[in-house]
Formats: sequence, structure tokens, C-alpha cells
Amino acid sequence: MKLREIAAMLNAEIEGNDAIEIHRVARIEEAGDGDITFVSSPKYTRFLQSTRASAVIVSRTLRWDGLNASQQVPVLLRVDDPYKSILKVHQVFHPPRDPLTPGIHPTALVAATASVGQDVRIGAYAVIGELCRIGDGVIICHGVILGDAVEVGSKSLLYPNVAIREECKIGSRVIIHSGAVIGSDGFGFSPKPGGSYEKIPQLGTVVVEDDVEIGANCTVDRATMGETRIKRGAKLDNLIQVAHNVVIGENTVIAAQAGISGSTKIGRGNMIGGQVGITGHLHIAENTKLGARSGIHHSIHQPENAYFGSPAYPQRQAFRIQGAVTQVPDLLNTVRELKRAVERLEKEIEELKMDRIVTDSSNRR
Amino acid sequence: MKLREIAAMLNAEIEGNDAIEIHRVARIEEAGDGDITFVSSPKYTRFLQSTRASAVIVSRTLRWDGLNASQQVPVLLRVDDPYKSILKVHQVFHPPRDPLTPGIHPTALVAATASVGQDVRIGAYAVIGELCRIGDGVIICHGVILGDAVEVGSKSLLYPNVAIREECKIGSRVIIHSGAVIGSDGFGFSPKPGGSYEKIPQLGTVVVEDDVEIGANCTVDRATMGETRIKRGAKLDNLIQVAHNVVIGENTVIAAQAGISGSTKIGRGNMIGGQVGITGHLHIAENTKLGARSGIHHSIHQPENAYFGSPAYPQRQAFRIQGAVTQVPDLLNTVRELKRAVERLEKEIEELKMDRIVTDSSNRR
Amino acid sequence: MKLREIAAMLNAEIEGNDAIEIHRVARIEEAGDGDITFVSSPKYTRFLQSTRASAVIVSRTLRWDGLNASQQVPVLLRVDDPYKSILKVHQVFHPPRDPLTPGIHPTALVAATASVGQDVRIGAYAVIGELCRIGDGVIICHGVILGDAVEVGSKSLLYPNVAIREECKIGSRVIIHSGAVIGSDGFGFSPKPGGSYEKIPQLGTVVVEDDVEIGANCTVDRATMGETRIKRGAKLDNLIQVAHNVVIGENTVIAAQAGISGSTKIGRGNMIGGQVGITGHLHIAENTKLGARSGIHHSIHQPENAYFGSPAYPQRQAFRIQGAVTQVPDLLNTVRELKRAVERLEKEIEELKMDRIVTDSSNRR
Repeated sequence: MKLREIAAMLNAEIEGNDAIEIHRVARIEEAGDGDITFVSSPKYTRFLQSTRASAVIVSRTLRWDGLNASQQVPVLLRVDDPYKSILKVHQVFHPPRDPLTPGIHPTALVAATASVGQDVRIGAYAVIGELCRIGDGVIICHGVILGDAVEVGSKSLLYPNVAIREECKIGSRVIIHSGAVIGSDGFGFSPKPGGSYEKIPQLGTVVVEDDVEIGANCTVDRATMGETRIKRGAKLDNLIQVAHNVVIGENTVIAAQAGISGSTKIGRGNMIGGQVGITGHLHIAENTKLGARSGIHHSIHQPENAYFGSPAYPQRQAFRIQGAVTQVPDLLNTVRELKRAVERLEKEIEELKMDRIVTDSSNRR
Repeated sequence: MKLREIAAMLNAEIEGNDAIEIHRVARIEEAGDGDITFVSSPKYTRFLQSTRASAVIVSRTLRWDGLNASQQVPVLLRVDDPYKSILKVHQVFHPPRDPLTPGIHPTALVAATASVGQDVRIGAYAVIGELCRIGDGVIICHGVILGDAVEVGSKSLLYPNVAIREECKIGSRVIIHSGAVIGSDGFGFSPKPGGSYEKIPQLGTVVVEDDVEIGANCTVDRATMGETRIKRGAKLDNLIQVAHNVVIGENTVIAAQAGISGSTKIGRGNMIGGQVGITGHLHIAENTKLGARSGIHHSIHQPENAYFGSPAYPQRQAFRIQGAVTQVPDLLNTVRELKRAVERLEKEIEELKMDRIVTDSSNRR
Repeated sequence: MKLREIAAMLNAEIEGNDAIEIHRVARIEEAGDGDITFVSSPKYTRFLQSTRASAVIVSRTLRWDGLNASQQVPVLLRVDDPYKSILKVHQVFHPPRDPLTPGIHPTALVAATASVGQDVRIGAYAVIGELCRIGDGVIICHGVILGDAVEVGSKSLLYPNVAIREECKIGSRVIIHSGAVIGSDGFGFSPKPGGSYEKIPQLGTVVVEDDVEIGANCTVDRATMGETRIKRGAKLDNLIQVAHNVVIGENTVIAAQAGISGSTKIGRGNMIGGQVGITGHLHIAENTKLGARSGIHHSIHQPENAYFGSPAYPQRQAFRIQGAVTQVPDLLNTVRELKRAVERLEKEIEELKMDRIVTDSSNRR
């Protein structure tokens, strides 16, 4: 592919020969003749000195004049966002494979009462239950199992071995990764005399709104009554637990292995770190940031704040506490010494006072 | 359905017109004409003032006389447990779907040497290995895979995509949710010269006793030798790790994402919070409570206690420590000031002593 | 089986009658006539007094002369490693079941363009995508799904319901347990105006090198560009998250529910405890030990060290801090008392000084 074609695709300014032929995308350290690469972070700028790449995508604002004359100069393509641009080029040279070939595989079992839209793909050994409604352009990969009366909106993509239980509703353009389980029973039991438990029936559903992404092996439990709801545009990484009756706000992003306990409502625009745990029945205000591994035991009412630690505190306080805690071993010594010093002082003052009495009385004598 | 029929089913006292017709269960904030709702927590009592529901299930002991004359009064149904009662009504209006239609699906592969009881349901693309023994009334959903010689007791329910490895024994009335893996190899390796590891064969099994529930995407490893055992009535939430040779006591309840390391024995009646981690080879006494995100590094020998924190301490101590830790930044300042004060005092006392010597000698002169 | 045959197999020295017949392996507390058992830990030596086992495997160095004459003496087999030896004997009496019967199941779907080696076993309802390359002796169990162009090296073993996405490469003698997902999309999004996110295409792959073991329900994400790589001999327990572009070093061992964030590189020979979390873009030096539940927020540059805590510190410091933290409640009291003592001292010194002035002036009078 000619560099000028790439430049046109990226709306890039070219510095150098735009007629050269590009064959491959490579990392800047490994690139050679015919390769295109990129620099998006200042700490990689130094590689511009030594790279053997034929072309480098850089920021429009990058200043760089460190070449000495003896070197071969790579052609620069200046763009707004080098990282996004290299991804575009990568996709041209190496188009991602389709997750599934078109059509409905002959081994897919689609219930007679299910309705299936236009251009739907369904993989081998998938099972679509009674009364399911599958929108246009949906891709349901091999081994996916949809219980009865599940709805999947248009252009959604379910990767292999996803399981969605009865009556759950999945929006449009939703992506659910392999092994995720949607609509399993919420964890609810009432104690019986003798120490055993009686299962509380879990009669609600799960609603996953449009443009949500749910990672591999996540679990999203159905509500006891009503709905567990993941709102539009929320993004969940892998191995996340979403308990019954939880609501996750629009455009909230949750990193891997976080867990949200029953009935907690999380506002829009949250950023929740990996391995965070949130207790049940809480409210988390919008645009809250919860640092990785935070443990949230209380509601957060004020929006736009960051928290950290387990139990979590406002981020500045958490860092202050954390820094202070490392000084506790020394502090214990300091206090022990102080205690001794004070005892010494007390004794000395006693002596001075005794002395004074003696002196006084001797003076009086 | 007539309200009096509902009242009879719930063994409820009626306050108001028992002839009205009920069509639906709804939340108290959203209910309207023809709807029934409930109040089980005092903080919802205020909604009784404003609800448009036709009937409300309340506690026999609720006192409420706050209506003004202008309002339409909902009929009250008084019961022992409003929450359980509304669930019963919900099930009448919206009976839960069967997890699977009766019969053995033609695509289910049941080994010739397997024995299958009465009224067993087996879903599409399920695989039942050689010598398996499936009790009466068992439901094995689509895509479930049972290795050879697996036993499943009567009336147990395995949701889609559960995998149970060879020789594991599942009791009666057990529920296992989608994606759970029972009987995977324990994590055991012995170091070899050069830094690599040799796999220790995992020759034991898993025994899941009667009335256990295991959540979605849990993993329960088989024993190295002998058994990993989950005892009668234990309830496990989602994404829990149970390592090889662990024993979980009767009626112990474990919340999501907790992990129990190899050979640890947990007593009966424990309540273990979400994301708790328990080190290997420990004993946890019966009726212990471990707060969410606790990290347990030592055995707990005395029953009936609560623990919290990571590492965990007895709950009162843990809260005391946690409260104290937040004061450490201020404490550091206090101690710094104290140190300066003590140094000042030391100087002043030195001066006083010097002064005294001077005074003394001047007096003596 | 004659005891002398067992002894020969184990290269053991026999103390006692080598002609007896052994029928079973049992635990030392439960063993009876015809049973063989073992003692590998000193705390079990006491059972030698009371066991009814016919033979006991013990260490060559065990000293034991505690038998009284009235007892039946078990025959001792002395070996280098009693634990490994009993596992060998166990396997003779109870050979592990084959994970899958030979051959390719008629319901397995193998794409026409896939290449399959010698002696490969493929289970029921497995799906092998286009252009896959499956090495000799590979075992692919029921319900496993391989996307297009996946490679699996010789003698690898994929347990039921494993899902591997397109273009991932699995080495030789790799074991992947049920429900693990390899090659799911990395978690990458770029913010858009208005608070929503745009998916960053995940164009890379996953490479799992030879002799790796990956536990049940683990998730290993594909790289954004390039590779996520798990190097030779690494062992991963269950429910572990490996994010995009992570590299895990040779012979590194990771316990259950740990999570490694994007682009972090972990050196060889690490031992990483359960529920550990490691932030993204870090380097962890070789032969590092991270205690269970540690939270790693900074790179570790020096090899061969142990860390603990969340946030983690060098192990000795972490224990010192942890021990100190438990003393903070008392410390607060101590400091409060010290403060009062210092205030008292300050007053007393003031009085002494005043007194002196008075005395001085009176002296001067």
C-alpha cells in the first residue's frame, strides 16, 4: 500500500516521500524496511533516533529535530491521535476475522416460537429458547444458550458459550464475551430453625441496555423481583459479579474481578477499578472513581469524587492515611522514647521542686 | 384474582373490601388501580400515604393511622412476613418458567452404561459420561457435560454449561448454576531443579452433599487424594474458588468471589462475606462470621465469633484498629509537636538546674 | 498386589514382611488390614502408634521406636519422598480415568481447512474453526470451541467447555481447564464527548507457551496489538484474570483469583498468591514472591524479594507495619496521656520559673 493512501485514510500531513510502499505494521523497536510504526507517548520519542521503520505516525504537535545527517530518515505522518491511527492501519493490513460465518448453522436449535431478524448469524450447537426475539444483524456464536423469552437487540454479538437465562433482555450493539452468565439466580435465602436455609425464589430478570459490553466469565444475577439493570454504554471487564437488583449507571466502566452486592445502585460515569468490592444496598453518586481494590462499605452521595483503600476513603485522605501507616513502626519507637523522656522530666521536676522546698527552708533558716 | 382468594392463600387478615379484583404485583411507588404491593421495611411505610395500589400487604404488627379523609384507602392484608407473602403472590401472577421442558432431548448424549432415573430431563447437546448415575427428577440443562462415573442425586438441577468432571458425586436437591466447574484438578506442583514444576496428579474427587447451591462460574477443585467436600445445605454465591481437599461445613453461606485455599476445613453455619480469602490448611470454627473482603491467615478455633479486615481481627478490634488508623496522620503531627515540647522542656529544666546551681553557689557566696 | 512389588516400584527399603498382600490406599487414621498408607509430615508420626494399616510408607530418615510389644507392627516402606510415593501407589490401585475416549466424536465439527495430527481425540459437540492446526496427541474434550486459525501444540489437553478465540497459539503439553476463555477482547475504550466510550479494536492474539497449565474459568485477553504471552512452564490456578498485552514469565506460579492488569510484564519464577492484584504497565522482577491478597501498584525492579499487603511492601516491612497498626488504638491513648503529662510539666515548669523569679527577687530584696 502506498504511504500516500495511508496518509489520505488518516487525514495525515506527510513529512517525506509519500510514494514509498508499506507492507506491514510493527513496533518501533522491531520495525524495518517497508514497515510503518507509531509514537504516541513521549517516552517512545527517543526510538525515532534509531528506528529502521520506513514511516512513523506521530502527533501533529511532536517536536523532533534530533536526526543526524548520516541516518536514514523515516517519513513522518502527522495526525491528531497516533494510537487510533495505527489501529486503523493495522486493521487495513490485518483485517480482524469475522467472529462467525454468515447464516444459521444447521446444528443450531432455534425454537419454533422464536423470532429471528434479518442477517442473523447463529453458530453450531447454539440453543435459542421458546419465544426468544433476536434482532437484525445479531451474531450468536457456537455453544451460546438462550433460555425462553430472551430478547437480543439488533447488531449485538454473543461470543461462544455465553449463557443467558429466561426472560432477560439484551439491548442493541451489546457485546457479551465467552463464558459470561446473565440471569442466574440472585443469592437469596431465609434462615430456617435449625440453621438451614430456604431459597427465596428469584422472580425478576436482567436488562442490559444498548451499547453495553460484558467481559468473559462475568456473572449478572437476575433480580429477586423487578430487574437487575446495566444501563446504556456501561463497560464491564472480565470475571465481574453483579448481584441481584443492582443498577449500573450509563457509561460506567468497571475493571476485572470487581463485585457489586445486591440492590446497590451505581450512578452514571463511574470508573471502578479492578477487584473493587461494593457492599449491598448502597448508592454510588455519578462520576465517582473507585481505585483498584477499594472496599466500599458506605454510600457515596457527592458526585465527582475519587476513593481508595479498603475500607475506602476519599483519595487524598486514603493516600495520607496510607503514607502515615508506614510510619507507625517508627512512631511506636518515638512514642516509647517520648514516654521515657517525660518520665525522666517528671522525676527531674519532682527533684527540682523538692530541692526548692529544701532551698526555701534553708533560706528561711 | 379476587383479593379474598389472595388473602386466603396468605392466611392474611383483611382490612377493607375483599371483593376487589387484583391483576398485578407492583412496587409501591409505581402501583396503580388493580395492583397489589407490600411494605416490609419501616422506611417504606410513608409510601402508604401516597400509593395508588388497590391493596398492600403489611405486617400484622404495623401501626398506621396517617390517612387523611380525602384519600382513597388501599385495602390492607396483614400477614406475618410481607416479603415472603408478596413473593408468593408474584409467583401466582407470573409463574416462573420451567428451566427445561420434560424429556430427554434427542441431541443429548447419554452413555449406554449410564443409569437414568424417573422423570429426568436432559437438555440439548448435554453429554452424560459412562457409568453416570442420575437420580429421579433430575434436570440437566442444555450444554451440561458430565464426565464418567458422575453421580447426581434426585431432584438436582444443573443449569446450562455446567461441567462436572469424572467421579464427582452430587447430592439430592442440589442446584448448580451456569458455568460452574466441579472437579477440575487441584493446583498442585512440586518444584524441579532448574525452576520448572512437575504436576502432582489430582486423584481424588468432589462430593457435594444434599441441598447445596453453587453459583454461576464457581470452581470446585477435586482433591489430590480423598475428597473435596461441600456439606449439606451450604450455599455458595457466584465466582467462588474452592480448592482441593477443602471441606465446607453444613449450612455455611459464602458470598461471591470468596476463595478458600487447599485443605482448609470450614465449620458449619459460617457466614463468609464477598471477596474473602482464606489461606490453606486452616480450621475455621463453626458459626464464624467473616466480614466482606476479610483475609484469613490463621485458624479460628473459637466458634461464634465475627472477624473483619485483611489480615482479619475479631470484629470489634478490627473496627477499633480501622478507626484508629484514620487518626494516624493527625497522630504523627501530635507526636511531632510533643517531641518538640519535650525537647523544650528538657532545655528549660536544664536551665532551671543550671540556674539553681548558680543560685545555690551565689547563695553560698 | 504383593508389598514387595510396591516396594520395587518405589525403590523402597522394607522393614517387615514383604509377602503381605495390599488391596487399597487409605488415610492413616482410617486404614485397616490390607491397606497401605503414608506419613510425610512429623505431626502424623504419632498415628504410627495406633494405625491398623498393613504397611506404611515413611521417609528413609524417620526415627521411630515407639511401638510396644503388644501391638501389631505395620510393615514400613522407607523412601525418599513418601507423598510422591503414595501418589504412585494410588495411581496403580485407582488409575485415573482417561479424560476422553480415543477418536474424533461424530458430532465434533472440524473445519475442512483445519489440520489435525496423529492420535488426536476430539469430544462431542466440539467445534474446530477454519485453518486451525492441532498437533499430535492433542485431547480436545466435549464442548470445546476453537475459533479460526487457532494452533494447539502436541499432547495438549483442553477440558470441557474451554473457549479459545481466533488466531491464539497454544503450545505443547499445555493443560487448560474447563470454562477457561483464551483470547477474549482486551478491555480498551477511548472516551467520547458526552461521556460515552468507543471500543478500541483488539487486534492482537494470545500465545500460551509449552507446559503451561491454566485453571478453570480463567480469562486471558488478547492483545490490543501484538501478543499477550504466558511463557513456558507457568502455572495458573482458577479464576485468574490476565489482561491484554500482559507477559507472564517462565515457571511463574499464580494462585486462584489473582488479576494482572494490562501490559504488565511479570518475570520468570514468580510466586503470586491468591487474590493478588497487579496494576497495569508494571514490571515485576524475576523470582518475586507476592503474598496472598497483595495489591501491587508499583514496579518491582529487584529480583528475589517477597512482598505483602495491599498496598504491598517488602515482606518484613509489611509484617512490621501490620504488627504496629494493631497497636495504634493503644498508641492513641498513650499519646493522649503523654500530651496531658507534657501540659502538666509545662505548667509546673512555668510555676518553677515564676517561683524562681519570686525567690530571686525576694533574695535580692
